[in-house]
Amino acid sequence: MSLIQPRTPSGVMELLPGEQIAFQSFLDTIRRGYERFGFLPVETPVFELTDVLLTKSGGETEKQVYFVQSTGARQQGRDPEMALRFDLTVPLARYVAEHEHDLAFPFRRYQMQRVYRGERAQKGRFREFYQCDIDVIGKDALPLAFDAEIPAVIHQVFSDLKVGGFTINFNNRKILAGLLAGLGIGEPGRQALVLREIDRLDKVGRDKVLESLTGGELALAADTAARILDLIGLSGSNADVVAALRGMDIADETFRAGLSELETVLDGLAALRVPERHYRVNLAIARGLDYYTGTVYETFLDDHPGIGSVCSGGRYENLASNYTRSRLPGVGISIGATRLFYQLREAGVIAAHASTAAALVALMDPALAAESYSLAAELRAAGINTELTLEPAKIAKQLKYADRVGIRFAVLIGADEAARGTATVKDLTRGTQVELPRAEVAGHLRDAAGTA
Amino acid sequence: MSLIQPRTPSGVMELLPGEQIAFQSFLDTIRRGYERFGFLPVETPVFELTDVLLTKSGGETEKQVYFVQSTGARQQGRDPEMALRFDLTVPLARYVAEHEHDLAFPFRRYQMQRVYRGERAQKGRFREFYQCDIDVIGKDALPLAFDAEIPAVIHQVFSDLKVGGFTINFNNRKILAGLLAGLGIGEPGRQALVLREIDRLDKVGRDKVLESLTGGELALAADTAARILDLIGLSGSNADVVAALRGMDIADETFRAGLSELETVLDGLAALRVPERHYRVNLAIARGLDYYTGTVYETFLDDHPGIGSVCSGGRYENLASNYTRSRLPGVGISIGATRLFYQLREAGVIAAHASTAAALVALMDPALAAESYSLAAELRAAGINTELTLEPAKIAKQLKYADRVGIRFAVLIGADEAARGTATVKDLTRGTQVELPRAEVAGHLRDAAGTA
Repeated sequence: MSLIQPRTPSGVMELLPGEQIAFQSFLDTIRRGYERFGFLPVETPVFELTDVLLTKSGGETEKQVYFVQSTGARQQGRDPEMALRFDLTVPLARYVAEHEHDLAFPFRRYQMQRVYRGERAQKGRFREFYQCDIDVIGKDALPLAFDAEIPAVIHQVFSDLKVGGFTINFNNRKILAGLLAGLGIGEPGRQALVLREIDRLDKVGRDKVLESLTGGELALAADTAARILDLIGLSGSNADVVAALRGMDIADETFRAGLSELETVLDGLAALRVPERHYRVNLAIARGLDYYTGTVYETFLDDHPGIGSVCSGGRYENLASNYTRSRLPGVGISIGATRLFYQLREAGVIAAHASTAAALVALMDPALAAESYSLAAELRAAGINTELTLEPAKIAKQLKYADRVGIRFAVLIGADEAARGTATVKDLTRGTQVELPRAEVAGHLRDAAGTA
Repeated sequence: MSLIQPRTPSGVMELLPGEQIAFQSFLDTIRRGYERFGFLPVETPVFELTDVLLTKSGGETEKQVYFVQSTGARQQGRDPEMALRFDLTVPLARYVAEHEHDLAFPFRRYQMQRVYRGERAQKGRFREFYQCDIDVIGKDALPLAFDAEIPAVIHQVFSDLKVGGFTINFNNRKILAGLLAGLGIGEPGRQALVLREIDRLDKVGRDKVLESLTGGELALAADTAARILDLIGLSGSNADVVAALRGMDIADETFRAGLSELETVLDGLAALRVPERHYRVNLAIARGLDYYTGTVYETFLDDHPGIGSVCSGGRYENLASNYTRSRLPGVGISIGATRLFYQLREAGVIAAHASTAAALVALMDPALAAESYSLAAELRAAGINTELTLEPAKIAKQLKYADRVGIRFAVLIGADEAARGTATVKDLTRGTQVELPRAEVAGHLRDAAGTA
């Protein structure tokens, strides 16, 4: 029989078991952080009905959608009724609108599932990837205090992930919009053009941006362009930036509202005890124009700026206007866990983890199998993840295996141990060994696991 | 703007948050059980290339497949390149063949992901559902000891799930095949017909089955049919059944091999300390003919026989012959977690869980917000999942909310507490309250959480 080459579609991250353990632990840490703040889990189906999913008028998103169709529907030549979700925001909107009367608002939800995009495959770009989202959805209104809780959760998660220093950058879209309006740039299309130039600042530098702002379509006056760049270039401590913004003497109401919101969020972060070194006001953070209306966030790893923002989001006015007439304002962020894990692994920050097992009960002699079987049962009953050798092999080979797959302790019962009612515990990390009464093995392993 | 009705496709299980917490806990328990035995996690992409996935020659499976196609591929009129997995066995075969040289054998893997089948929608039938599989894959050979480890894992998982009594039924396909061969029914097609009749025994009774065996296509002699039914009807303790099988004086080699394997598995289960009340030899367990070749398992809940088998599987000769010439025998089982959870919930065995939060820090007075914010931060730093009220509301409403969503403790700081440096902790389950110095709140909650 001819063989089929075993392979996955391109653009997916499939891991070997040691790496999968590390990734699972990564996801568990994120989940624990979300639950630490009382966020509630939601899972939605991988596919949605196409009319529910594709509410937006064409555009990039629709081009990247994967449609789903059963054999029967295909044979009948029907158009696909379903498509794979491309993010977790549309499913959240559908979920909240559908279950509105069964949910308590403000509704804090987290969702950690895979999403699908028909991207052209290239290194580090995924067609299937995990997103780990939190959002708080209010009914009619949502207090600004939630705009401070969101970065407090991010602080918890990235502290727990132990991936080095990180900084949550945040801004309020009203500040820039207000400034622009005050300068006579009130038309949304023109504001969008300015924001797009601002987003290029990191890449092309101040002079090029100044040139674009004063030339071409926008043709701003030189002092107007300079004023914009002065504002977004404000730096120093958070208090310095706020003081400078206050001192700018801009009367525009939207600007004042944005500044006031920014200060409220800063106060909230301090009250929630988030260390100030982990967040900073960055007026150059703009993010796409349509969706976010107030606070916006981007998070960067201090030692890996090249990765870009690892966690982004913001405040939006109305989650689910396609599905319900209820007004549902919200604020949230998303961690692209597959991409982040992949890049941290490439950067050597994350290594494959140890096995799921803490101990290997070796098989010294098949005639003593019953001894090792029952010892394994005792260790498991004591809550210790225990692998048991079931295939006879030289003991050196068993120890080498344990070492290779990252099982720290090997437990052996040979003829001597069996006669004495003991077991020998080898610590493969430390290179030590000790013979103990069988009843003491579980306790010893638990104590020793706490040491390195 | 006209609204789109928010709804999911039929045949999916989407849960409200309280139920999702219960389901998450259910899945976590299964995972913990699998890891207790050192099984290693694998996740595969939701879709596979169609030529990799659909290796079987048509049949029921292919009719139920969901094909996946990007917008671009659809526009070009191409056939779908990918399809959603319909089980976890084909992806495992592809994974092991693809990564054969990076895996250590025997390879114990677990996989807990959703699978997809284009079934006709009906109550309790799902098009998207979780499977939670374990398999051990050997290279060239796999010792029989693993056939005992698999039910030991099942015993761990179902004990931990706390869903009442359960019994792992097992059999060895060689016993029946050998008996049939010894009775002159050696042709696989005829064996399959007999097995199909045996599978009907529970439903239609002994007489009807006897009638089918002796009539129609099979036309067995009456004493042959009676001999078959006597064998599969053997009952009593496991030792009784084995003794009766031994006493049957059947010389067929396959029969003797199957009996010897059965006894080895029984010895292994005893050595692994699985209580005998949880497993029994049941010679009527046949399972579909093609795939399983030795030990087969089905597990039933003692109090809910109507649910049918909640965990089934067995031993197979060769996992991945479509993808590799290596011989990869294996043994494994699968828990259909979505269906099982759904049915246990319908039966009232599983209820929606409490919130992810153990404590709600209430907001007594917006002027004292900073006090409650920092207390929430302290509790979180102490590892207590804590929800913080951020939206001003009457205190009675906050307490009612906590009670409704299943948060047991409410922590309050009013003007008096703020002045005294204390907080009041209300236990909503017990209806008690106590005022404590702030520094003692976290410890009190931890201690009190251990009580009911």
